[in-house]
Amino acid sequence: TGRGCVPPRRMRGAGPGAAAAKGAAAFIMRSVGSDEHRMPHTGTTRYVDGRVPIPGFTLAAPDADQLSRLIAMGETVRLSLSSTAHTYETVSQNVIGDIPGASRPEEVIVLGSHMDSWDLGTGAIDDGAGGGITLAAAKAIAEAGRRPARTIRVVLYGSEEVDQPNNIGNGGGAYLRGIGDAVENHVIAGESDFGADRIYALGLPPGAQGSDFAKAAARVLYPIGVLPSAQPELHGGADIGPLAAAGVPVFGLNQDGTRYFDLHHTADDTLDKIDPEQLSQNVAAWAALVYLIADSDVDFRAMRPAEAAAH
Amino acid sequence: TGRGCVPPRRMRGAGPGAAAAKGAAAFIMRSVGSDEHRMPHTGTTRYVDGRVPIPGFTLAAPDADQLSRLIAMGETVRLSLSSTAHTYETVSQNVIGDIPGASRPEEVIVLGSHMDSWDLGTGAIDDGAGGGITLAAAKAIAEAGRRPARTIRVVLYGSEEVDQPNNIGNGGGAYLRGIGDAVENHVIAGESDFGADRIYALGLPPGAQGSDFAKAAARVLYPIGVLPSAQPELHGGADIGPLAAAGVPVFGLNQDGTRYFDLHHTADDTLDKIDPEQLSQNVAAWAALVYLIADSDVDFRAMRPAEAAAH
Repeated sequence: TGRGCVPPRRMRGAGPGAAAAKGAAAFIMRSVGSDEHRMPHTGTTRYVDGRVPIPGFTLAAPDADQLSRLIAMGETVRLSLSSTAHTYETVSQNVIGDIPGASRPEEVIVLGSHMDSWDLGTGAIDDGAGGGITLAAAKAIAEAGRRPARTIRVVLYGSEEVDQPNNIGNGGGAYLRGIGDAVENHVIAGESDFGADRIYALGLPPGAQGSDFAKAAARVLYPIGVLPSAQPELHGGADIGPLAAAGVPVFGLNQDGTRYFDLHHTADDTLDKIDPEQLSQNVAAWAALVYLIADSDVDFRAMRPAEAAAH
Repeated sequence: TGRGCVPPRRMRGAGPGAAAAKGAAAFIMRSVGSDEHRMPHTGTTRYVDGRVPIPGFTLAAPDADQLSRLIAMGETVRLSLSSTAHTYETVSQNVIGDIPGASRPEEVIVLGSHMDSWDLGTGAIDDGAGGGITLAAAKAIAEAGRRPARTIRVVLYGSEEVDQPNNIGNGGGAYLRGIGDAVENHVIAGESDFGADRIYALGLPPGAQGSDFAKAAARVLYPIGVLPSAQPELHGGADIGPLAAAGVPVFGLNQDGTRYFDLHHTADDTLDKIDPEQLSQNVAAWAALVYLIADSDVDFRAMRPAEAAAH
């Protein structure tokens, strides 16, 4: 999943479980992707404990249209279904790299993305792009000549959305458990998980919007087309969601999502869909913003208004 | 195939035969479609007599890009190929319907299209659209209240490009053989085989461009956005090609082909890609032009200049 707008995906996630409860042998639905190609869109299905899992299928929009036309014409429709999906017992892992802070290394800024993808495509958009953007931004900072005060940590999360076998949980939850009390020293986290199309707005944590830090960030980001977001950032994304829920402030570099739901979770999630020019703008925005945070002593937790702290 | 621009398809047609001659076990190429989706583009392959047919494959553009990247990175690339293609021994047929001429029924105008398609998609673009457009135009004329002088014949050709088993030939050739000497009474033929996007120009046979008939046609077609083509029409299309080669004049209602090679011969050739408004413009242009020809005594053969007649 990407951050930002949310597709009508509840049916996809909960539909097979609801159908199984009513005795269905299988579940089939119209693709919730926004493309017009014969590319079925996939995603997480959550079965309810104690119910027999039934296979879930998606029809690409043109095929769902055709099925609807056949039914409307009074045709007797028979579907022959075959699924090759299965659960792998392998365990995925988080990959973590630090640029240690020069003067306050215990203070950590997390740059998140995830390595797993829906295997119809190659995962270039979701979320190869995010890994590339955050790694390239960190590399630019590391090679800038002057190491910033705080630690910059790039985390390539494993298993973004799906709980792993043996109740290990997903990568975001595993990271949170792994850091223990160090969560208190996590200054802020951000996630790149919406492809590589251009960033148009920066959302900061509640209380930080309009602050001196926000003004400094705006001065750096305005020349590359990034404006302050009208909305504070609360959730961050699926991978850093556990950090946000544990009280770590999050930022969002909001991207153009026009093409995102045409591509993600489909066979069309491939490298040719990445526009190098927009990819570079993403890297520039991440490098500039993260350097600014890492070399400052701004405390986003302290800026939070009372009602947001209770969120 | 559509009329109009031609994709770089020689490699697709002749490649497997050329590879077989050099001892290849199989042939694989980058898709020649113009789309950026993971939709391999298919089409006619012509084997050379006496050579062992080898399977021919196409990689969609994103997959061909990926393969090229792997090779450029020095990776050892192994491809596992499996083909389910085979030749059916069924025979396709032409379906012909006439609106008999009121006063000169022996004079025939052919409105061509074809019923077969590449079976990755449903053939809505190539060439369900053509059948729909020519049938709807003929229906509009039949219901107009006053039957025109000449016979209007809608031919839904079978087997557009591929010779059928037992040397029966394709639908266009079978039609020509079937009419015998009546070919002399075929006034003109046109073919709709380029999807349903809008018509922008009318090409008439050599000598007819700029004639009084051309001016009358321009007056009728201008209000729906169809201008006289700068080029005379010589070939007409694959289905009426045998008629054209036998000396029957042909016209062309030239269509916007921007999307055509994104869709045709791929799994994306489906009904949702037909724009009803542009489809209607096609039907209007065909109905108006064909009525004008059918109710006139214009003789396109007589208008042909000497060098074109020798073509």
